[in-house]
Amino acid sequence: MEYTSKITVRYYETDQMGVVHHSNYIRYFETAREEMMEHYGVPYTETESRGIIMPVHAVHCDYIHPARYGEVLSVETRLEEMPRSRITFRYNILNPDNVLLAKGYVTLAFVDVSRGKPVRAPRFLTEVLEKYINL
Amino acid sequence: MEYTSKITVRYYETDQMGVVHHSNYIRYFETAREEMMEHYGVPYTETESRGIIMPVHAVHCDYIHPARYGEVLSVETRLEEMPRSRITFRYNILNPDNVLLAKGYVTLAFVDVSRGKPVRAPRFLTEVLEKYINL
Amino acid sequence: MEYTSKITVRYYETDQMGVVHHSNYIRYFETAREEMMEHYGVPYTETESRGIIMPVHAVHCDYIHPARYGEVLSVETRLEEMPRSRITFRYNILNPDNVLLAKGYVTLAFVDVSRGKPVRAPRFLTEVLEKYINL
Amino acid sequence: MEYTSKITVRYYETDQMGVVHHSNYIRYFETAREEMMEHYGVPYTETESRGIIMPVHAVHCDYIHPARYGEVLSVETRLEEMPRSRITFRYNILNPDNVLLAKGYVTLAFVDVSRGKPVRAPRFLTEVLEKYINL
Repeated sequence: MEYTSKITVRYYETDQMGVVHHSNYIRYFETAREEMMEHYGVPYTETESRGIIMPVHAVHCDYIHPARYGEVLSVETRLEEMPRSRITFRYNILNPDNVLLAKGYVTLAFVDVSRGKPVRAPRFLTEVLEKYINL
Repeated sequence: MEYTSKITVRYYETDQMGVVHHSNYIRYFETAREEMMEHYGVPYTETESRGIIMPVHAVHCDYIHPARYGEVLSVETRLEEMPRSRITFRYNILNPDNVLLAKGYVTLAFVDVSRGKPVRAPRFLTEVLEKYINL
Repeated sequence: MEYTSKITVRYYETDQMGVVHHSNYIRYFETAREEMMEHYGVPYTETESRGIIMPVHAVHCDYIHPARYGEVLSVETRLEEMPRSRITFRYNILNPDNVLLAKGYVTLAFVDVSRGKPVRAPRFLTEVLEKYINL
Repeated sequence: MEYTSKITVRYYETDQMGVVHHSNYIRYFETAREEMMEHYGVPYTETESRGIIMPVHAVHCDYIHPARYGEVLSVETRLEEMPRSRITFRYNILNPDNVLLAKGYVTLAFVDVSRGKPVRAPRFLTEVLEKYINL
């Protein structure tokens, strides 16, 4: 299960090294998983409206080559296993010349807002993912 | 009624022009009024905990000279009139050489969260400000 | 001369009021003028590569209605007059229900990097704009 | 070699979950190492002015407990080994109740700007660190 987002580098994302500031890759990861989940019919707005929030549990990013202002990046997002108490998205970011700029992953938990407690991945989410995982 | 905040320019606030990105001055304005209100005994956390939020109604900033990474800026915040349905903070931002970098203002409204309605400036706020305004 | 950009609100752009933080509208303005200038064949990357930078001279924004996570905003950008020593972009931001969320303007200067001096709007830019202004 | 920075959570750093957005911890890490290096007499401004930039090579953060608006966080930064071709800063972030909110690390490289090539940690930096490491 993989999805590719196109993200254009904005001027305010650059720093005085003349490249994208490293913290913004973490934001690209978020945008890419939002787009992936929306593409598969389970947008995060719906997850929140059903009373489940997904706080981030861990973030990792390896930076290989800098991204530059104006480039349209390809952010490839993969789900390799069915979520249980956690869900892990894995990423590659490539520039328009297909150079690998960064790779990383983000692990999120599921929290039931009304009870303030961690819960297992909700059914409405796993039902959708079961159709696509291993494809 | 005036208060000066010291704000250090962070690397992630610079852009590829080698100076602070203009959008960050709007964030410096926010930080400065938070510090001012906390100094006068009415921190914004308390305003929110009393059920009043203060959405921004208008922002203006004139940029005169760029701010650079590592500089400790002086952000001078003034309240020139008692708030009624709106409150206006006026700002000057200066660098360590006392050069005026920017000036501007931010106008905020008061909204009662439980009713979702704009309200007049709450008593707990005006009581404090009455002691300091025109000083 | 008007151009409409579609900008999707990202989770990291919201704040604890549950709406888009006001500073991000200034960044939407930047993204919208970048897209407009690219659409008309004069992307900002080219302006910078020709040795001209465009520092922001003034920003103004009136906030009317909040933007929410996941909404696809329409940012309408207008150029109403030919740039001389300054260029002013005027904006309306609307949500998917066509409600006006904010309006404002941004004025930028032109600076010749090699000389570090303000200059008039460069020919390669005004030649393009002359074709479109008043249309 | 350890240094503790005090960082106040700003309103624009919160998101609609009512807590600090996870990407901002990466920015807190940067602010903390800037303050640490300045404290030890080798501010990053000086490193850049000597022609060495320090691009980020890897970032990792584990999130344990959320940070909230207005809290003054303690960011503990440690250097556990002398830098060679890379330097690794390790972090703990705690809230005012001394609850561990997050831990992580950031690895940076050294690049000679004039040659555009990775280099070993420069002498002016290692000379300073030798005095403090293992203390």
